[in-house]
Order: sequence, then structure tokens, then C-alpha cells
Amino acid sequence: MSTVAEVETAQPTPADQPGIREGAFGNARSLACRECGNEVELGPHYACPECFGPLEVSYDFPVVTREEIEAGPRNIWRYKALLPVPDDIEQSPNMEPGFTRLLQARNLGRELGLEKLWVKDDSTNPTNSFKDRVVACALSAATEFHSKVFACPSTGNLANAVAAAGARAGIKTVVFIPSNLEKPKQVNSAVYTDSLVAVNGNYDDVNKLASEIAGEEDGWAFVNVNVRPFYAEGSKTLGYEIAEQLGWRLPDQVVIPVASGSQLTKVHKAFGELVRLGLVEDKPVKIFGAQATGCSPVSTAYKAEVDAIRPVKPDTIAKSLAIGNPADGIYVLDICRSTGGAVEDITDDEVREGILLLARHEGIFTETAGGTTVGVLKKLVETGQLDPTLETVVINTGMGLKTLDAVSDQVGPAATIDASYAAFTATGIA
Amino acid sequence: MSTVAEVETAQPTPADQPGIREGAFGNARSLACRECGNEVELGPHYACPECFGPLEVSYDFPVVTREEIEAGPRNIWRYKALLPVPDDIEQSPNMEPGFTRLLQARNLGRELGLEKLWVKDDSTNPTNSFKDRVVACALSAATEFHSKVFACPSTGNLANAVAAAGARAGIKTVVFIPSNLEKPKQVNSAVYTDSLVAVNGNYDDVNKLASEIAGEEDGWAFVNVNVRPFYAEGSKTLGYEIAEQLGWRLPDQVVIPVASGSQLTKVHKAFGELVRLGLVEDKPVKIFGAQATGCSPVSTAYKAEVDAIRPVKPDTIAKSLAIGNPADGIYVLDICRSTGGAVEDITDDEVREGILLLARHEGIFTETAGGTTVGVLKKLVETGQLDPTLETVVINTGMGLKTLDAVSDQVGPAATIDASYAAFTATGIA
Ligand SMILES: Cc1ncc(COP(=O)(O)O)c(C=O)c1O
Ligand SMILES: Cc1ncc(COP(=O)(O)O)c(C=O)c1O
Ligand SMILES: [Zn+2]
Ligand SMILES: [Zn+2]
Repeated sequence: MSTVAEVETAQPTPADQPGIREGAFGNARSLACRECGNEVELGPHYACPECFGPLEVSYDFPVVTREEIEAGPRNIWRYKALLPVPDDIEQSPNMEPGFTRLLQARNLGRELGLEKLWVKDDSTNPTNSFKDRVVACALSAATEFHSKVFACPSTGNLANAVAAAGARAGIKTVVFIPSNLEKPKQVNSAVYTDSLVAVNGNYDDVNKLASEIAGEEDGWAFVNVNVRPFYAEGSKTLGYEIAEQLGWRLPDQVVIPVASGSQLTKVHKAFGELVRLGLVEDKPVKIFGAQATGCSPVSTAYKAEVDAIRPVKPDTIAKSLAIGNPADGIYVLDICRSTGGAVEDITDDEVREGILLLARHEGIFTETAGGTTVGVLKKLVETGQLDPTLETVVINTGMGLKTLDAVSDQVGPAATIDASYAAFTATGIA
Repeated sequence: MSTVAEVETAQPTPADQPGIREGAFGNARSLACRECGNEVELGPHYACPECFGPLEVSYDFPVVTREEIEAGPRNIWRYKALLPVPDDIEQSPNMEPGFTRLLQARNLGRELGLEKLWVKDDSTNPTNSFKDRVVACALSAATEFHSKVFACPSTGNLANAVAAAGARAGIKTVVFIPSNLEKPKQVNSAVYTDSLVAVNGNYDDVNKLASEIAGEEDGWAFVNVNVRPFYAEGSKTLGYEIAEQLGWRLPDQVVIPVASGSQLTKVHKAFGELVRLGLVEDKPVKIFGAQATGCSPVSTAYKAEVDAIRPVKPDTIAKSLAIGNPADGIYVLDICRSTGGAVEDITDDEVREGILLLARHEGIFTETAGGTTVGVLKKLVETGQLDPTLETVVINTGMGLKTLDAVSDQVGPAATIDASYAAFTATGIA
């Protein structure tokens, strides 16, 4: 815990930062500790000064109407009243992520025996993962804090999103990744930034290094470390969009991949806010978490019916989910249990199968994280943990070209022929 | 020309297809010959029975208002009244493409010396290229024609889009590509379909084979061959969206990549329709075409000030633009000349530079086609062919992960380090 405390005291308080302007964080009121409820001023803090628990943005929401939201831009800023961002957020250069497709998945539903299935497809975000959402909120915070450097430790997608958003915003970026990361994800960061740093070790090692740098260097905004409370709020927009796109109502069940667990907790938070604001009717929503067996600390705790999460050393092709020591794991456990959901995990072969299931049935090419989520959905139905008669949303958080090797041995041309009709008929395809 | 004639007579006329329902093609009236004006009934025809000229969809448009369009879905179907599709098109399973971001590109504009530059970013379409638009229209036509097989010859992106849309619609797909195509584009088709056929030869050879199969096999809808008139209309939505997203007005200049030339001609057609329908004010719009020097038959003709296009054997990294015998090349020439635009081409090194320019300045990772378009924009400014004081839109039609090898030698980690703060400071990045 000493690292956390050091980093925390190394950060200036808002009073030390006279440059923070009025309204910089919209309707956000404070940062509140998830453990003890202690509130601190809005600033680049992430750990409670009382108990070192994680801080989360809390709000004083005004009345917010469906009409106001619907009149907003076709990206996450339509929900700006519910995010820790200023009212003029659309004016600053940003990636304009979000408002991705919610597709009814009739074929996949039929295949898996589900009556009503939707895919929330975040693979069409600007850098092709849901991370563009969280990074847009983190960029806003970094800008308001006058940070000099926009940085992150990443399992790949976050690095892509940070490097791209920083390029567009004109802020220096430094992104840290495990050195064994998939080549497409490396190149997809290096095209945007001169400062991609490969670190020998796994994500948890990279994350520790980032915390150290955050504590030592002034003016560095590590999106998922010292501005994590602001960053994490971005994932709420996935929940808002699902509800709005269903016609302002909640689904019965949602299946969400879990790495640090942040996204899952924020989709759940979003549903609760919509109910409290009167934007949707209250109803129970079961939340399910998806992991790959090779990195399944949360699923393991869920199945063992314990509250503590034991860190693991990841070994799975689902590298974007390979966080062995998940910061929000305990909150994921709590949410999945209390809503009547579950946390489940599948093998790497089932991850590959999940990728092909989604591609063949719905024309969506997802990465290993999405393969994990779809594969877990299948397993949840098969094991009776998920009710196939209830309306279900599965979130596809990433895209297949980033983890091409996961399937490139399994699919390919049916035939290679000369350019003649005779050669074609000989294939038997006609 | 004999192949065209044979294929044409092999196709049934609408009268032979009693299954075509009322309203199958919306407000479309007929197929009109671009050369002689001869009109034929709506059907799977693509060549004029009188002169073998290309057929194009013509319409009897009703009154269409901005409000009706704005109330539509957030995809190309908001423009369904202007497309050859039925009124219930949203109900049939499709990819829901379009309504992609129009981003103001301040950084790139500054870099290139342009006062007002926008990027229309079609890389965030469902299969990450503008081809999802044309394929959605072709799928509608194929469905209305009760086709058994949904097929295409492709330089890569079209194959991805056809295979994905077919998977989602539940129609058998067969896609043909040159066997030397980039691996990511091959895998990105093979995940969706069992029938990816690699053909030894270049795109023009693949295209010829497809025409032959279309003439021999019944019930095959080759999107860009026998249903090409319907397919091509999909690109109009790029023009509609640019105008709507600018606040219902036209830009001064647009830069568009050219392979077959279809897209460029349709964006031009779209602008004209919007003016005629009273949806935007009339004004001159200069249209510019972009090619890679290694496959620049249209640019060559433009510079030589001739009307005929001499086919070439493509040799460029911009494989998605590698059509040596462009079907709509002569119309591109005509449009670029008559609007005061130009057609320009650049080297493969400039294509790579174009990719990095867009990534570094705007956080958009494009493929070689987009690198071509951005690189040509740069050259057009430098050579004084494009007026830097006028409002300019550049269309990014594809995405970088599909042509990773084009830049993967040029960018990468700045450093690979051990997970310690000391190792990091030694890099000099902080
Ligand atoms: C594609 C993808 N999906 C899901 C996740 C999980 O996110 P979280 O850390 O919020 O649980 C990640 C995290 O990197 C990711 O890259
Ligand atoms: C990414 C991309 N851009 C542009 C084009 C050019 O399209 P057209 O044939 O309509 O000129 C293609 C064609 O395949 C493409 O794949
Ligand atoms: Zn506390
Ligand atoms: Zn004719």
C-alpha cells in the first residue's frame, strides 16, 4: 500500500492547481471512496487518503431528459451531463467515440438457443475497441489538469486509444505495453506515437512500473492510474447506449468481459443512474462477467464462493484480458452475485470458437476478448446459468484484425485456382 | 464486348421474375444507360441492350425533407428514399453501415497548409471500409432478385464486406480475390465464409473470371458485376453524409481515391441530387481523384489530356486501388475536369508517408488507399492544383490494420526495457 500512499501525496490537491477552471468536470461533485465513503475534491487522485480505497466520481445531477440526450451529438458526448467533463467538451479535439451499433443477433441467438439476443458492437469505435470511450474522458481530465504527458500501461487496446487520442489532441503520449504483445496492436500504437515503450514482463509488471513513474514524474496523466476515476466513467456510456438503443429500457441480462473489471462495474453503475434519473423504468438486470481460463482470478473466486481475489500469472491468447491482479475484481464479484448473474471462464480453444461463432453468424470479426465473451455466453446457456428466454445483450469490446493470429491458422482460402471458369468449376463450389 | 452481351442476355428480364415485389426498389424508376440514355426495367442488368454502355439507377424522387432524413436511423438507411431499396429495408438483417464520423482535421490542415480540412472517416464502418455501404445496397437487390449466391471479385475490402454481410443475412457467399492479397484481408474474409477463392492473377483477371461465372451460373448476384448498378448507388451516401454533417451544405473541394472510379462518380451524383431536391444550396464543388503511381491509368489520362483510358498492369502497395482497367475511369475524368478538380498520383513511399501523416496528426490509422488519398491531397496543395483557402473534405475509405505491412517496418517500440523506473529513465523519454 505504500506505493499508493506515496503516489497520492505526490499529487497536488486542487487548491494547489489554481488553473482548474469552473465547470471543468461538469456535474461531478467530488471523488468518493468506494470503501469508506470519504469524499475528496476533484483532482488527479485515485486512492482515498483515509483508507487507500479506490476513488470514484460522484455527481450532483440536474434534471436530465431523454430529449436533451437525443438532441446531442452521435457520440458519447450526448451523455456529457452524466460524465465528469465540461459542457464545451465537443469543442476540444477528441476522437468522438461511441454510439456504436446495437445489433439484433438472430442467427447467433438461434445457434445458442437464446430467444432474444443483441450484440453491442464496440469494434467500430475509432481505434476499434471500447477503450476510446474511457480515453476520451481521461483526455478531458488530463486537459483540465494541464497535464504535459498522456500515458498508460496497457494490454494493447488502451495503448492504441491513448496514442491516437493524444495525436489528435496534440498532447505528448507515452504508452507502455508488455513486450510480447501481438504485432498488430504494437504497430497500431506506434503509428500514432514516437514513444511506445515495450516492457519485459506481463501487464501487472507494466502497471507497477506506470504507478512508479506516476509517483515520480510531474504532470503525467496515466489514464488508468492517477486519472483512473475520470477514465473509468467513460465505460458508463456503454450502459447508457444499450438502454437508449433499446428504446429507453433495460435488458434482462448483460455479458461483459473482465480484465481489471472496470467496464463491468461502470455498465452496472450506468443502469442504476438511468433508473435514478427517471430515464428508464427500474427492473432487475443480471450482470455476467467473462474471463479466459488462463487468466480467471475473478471467475475462480466466484466459483469458490470467496470474496478475496487471488492474483494469477496470465497464460492465455486473450491478451487484452490478461490482468492477473484486477483492480476492480472484488466489485465485479459483488455485482455479479447481487444481481443474480455469474462469472464464468473458458479455454483458449473456446475463445477461438467464440470468434468464429460471431463472425459466421453475424458478420462481426472480434478479437480474443470478444471471443471470450461470446464463448462464455455459450457456456452460460449450456450450464443453465443464463436464462435463454430473457432478453440478453453481449458486449463486443474489440476487433479481430488486432489478434489475427488467433484464427489465421484455422481459416483461409477454400481453393487457390487459375483464372478460368474450368478451374473454378473443378473446385466444386458452384 | 461479346462477354458483356452474353451475360446480359443470360439474365432474365423483370417480366421473367414474377417474384419481384412491388416497391422492391423504392423510388427507383429504371436503369438508364449512361451512354445513350436508353432505359430498361429494374432487374439484374448492367449493360445497355442497345449500346453495351453501363446502366445506372434513375429515380422518380418524391419530396424529401431534411427532417425526414434526420428522423431516420443512424446509418445509411436514413437516406433510403434516395436509394434503390424498399421502404422496409431496416427490417432485413444487414450490417447497418454508414453515418461515420466527419472530423475536422486541424492538425493535418495546419501541416499541409489548408485553412479548413475535414476527414470523412469510413474506416469505422462495420468491416472497416466504405464497401459496407455499397454491399448493403447490393444485398438488398440480391434479396429482391431471390439470388442464391452473394458474390464478388475483390481487391480485398469488398470481399470482407460481402462475406460479412452475407453471413449476417444468411445467404451463401463466394468471394474471389487475387492470390497475392494481404494476409489480414484474406483472413478477414475467411472468418465469415467457407468460400474464399484465391485466384492466380491480378484483380482484372479475377474480375474477368467473375463475369464469366455470372454469365454461366443462375442465381448468382455478383455485387459489382451483374448487380453493379444497385451496388454503386451505395456510395452516394458518402456524399449525403458529408453534406448533412456539414450542416446541410456542400464543401468546396473533395479528394476521393479511385480504383474502378465508382465511388467518385457517385459522390458527385449525390451532391447533384441534394441540390435538385432542394436539400442543400447549389454551389460549385471541385472533385479530385487520387491514385497510386503504380496503378494510375486515370491520372495518366488526365495529365495527357486524353479521353481514353489505357489499361495498365498494377504494381503498387495500394492493392485495394489496384484496378488496371477501371470501369468508371472515363466518367471520373469527365467529372474531375468539368468541376475544376484534377486526378493526381503518388509513389508508394508517398503512400506510406500519407498513412503516417494521418495517424500522427489526427489519430486515424488508414490503409494504403487512405495513405494514397492523403498523400495526393498533400501533392495537390504543393503543386497548386488545390486551393488551400477553400473548405476541403478528404475521404478515408479504409483502415490500417488491413495493410499492416505497409508501415510495420517503419514504426515500432521506441525502446524495450525491463520493468524498472531506472530502466525507463535511461531511455531518455521522460
Ligand atoms: C477488448 C477489451 N475488452 C475488455 C477489456 C476489459 O476491460 P476492464 O479492464 O475494464 O475490465 C479490455 C481491457 O483492456 C479490452 O482491451
Ligand atoms: C479502401 C478502398 N478505397 C477506395 C476504393 C476505390 O473504389 P472504387 O472502385 O469505387 O473507385 C476501394 C476499392 O476497392 C477500396 O477498397
Ligand atoms: Zn476510504
Ligand atoms: Zn446505351
